Amino acid sequence: MPSIFTKIIEGDIPSYKIAEDDKHYAFLDINPSAEGHTLCIPKKEVDYIFDLEPSDLSELNLFAQKVARGIDEALQPIRTGIIVEGMEVPHAHIHLIPIYKETQRFSLGMQVGISQDRMMELAKIISKKITL
Amino acid sequence: MPSIFTKIIEGDIPSYKIAEDDKHYAFLDINPSAEGHTLCIPKKEVDYIFDLEPSDLSELNLFAQKVARGIDEALQPIRTGIIVEGMEVPHAHIHLIPIYKETQRFSLGMQVGISQDRMMELAKIISKKITL
Repeated sequence: MPSIFTKIIEGDIPSYKIAEDDKHYAFLDINPSAEGHTLCIPKKEVDYIFDLEPSDLSELNLFAQKVARGIDEALQPIRTGIIVEGMEVPHAHIHLIPIYKETQRFSLGMQVGISQDRMMELAKIISKKITL
Repeated sequence: MPSIFTKIIEGDIPSYKIAEDDKHYAFLDINPSAEGHTLCIPKKEVDYIFDLEPSDLSELNLFAQKVARGIDEALQPIRTGIIVEGMEVPHAHIHLIPIYKETQRFSLGMQVGISQDRMMELAKIISKKITL
């Protein structure tokens, strides 16, 4: 059975899309820890990120770097941090989480409420700033 | 002034070393969130990970992958996760944190106490399993 992320890539489940190339897809996390919290995933379904072939791991990280630069330009956080935990969905994914304050608690457990309208707006302003 | 991590690389500050190649260094975090919690750093001092040149970012991630595989083989966690927050030391670093239980809280704030003897032992058994 395809993972929930594969269904998102294929458009069977809607997402706030941020960026896409032939091997990767980025979209807003619907349980965000901060405004602009984005997931970057490879289109290939591999559960554990460190099981990716080295070349695929490199490409995923370079895709995430371009997305992070777009987030930084669009939202001007102090910087964008990374979490990879991967215990919930068996499809490797990188969380990019903008850090707006030095005291911001940095963990996937900390969720902020963001309206659908604001999520749509965030997706739009971030995606405009990404150069793949 | 060199960063605390540069002092560690140069041996001016002692560390529980895990692995080293010409461009990277890995050592146990002295405030570990779990047994085997390791920091992977580039020898070049760059503050923000996404400011690394793409080729340097790739190489750092491939080094981290080799270290993570060593941790997985030595300590047999469910998997090893990643956190990059970078608000404390202005020298890019990847936290590799073994996840031993699905309920393990995954955050840099959660510290576990580990004796010096056990830290030395952990460094030894992990480093033995790393192939660079």
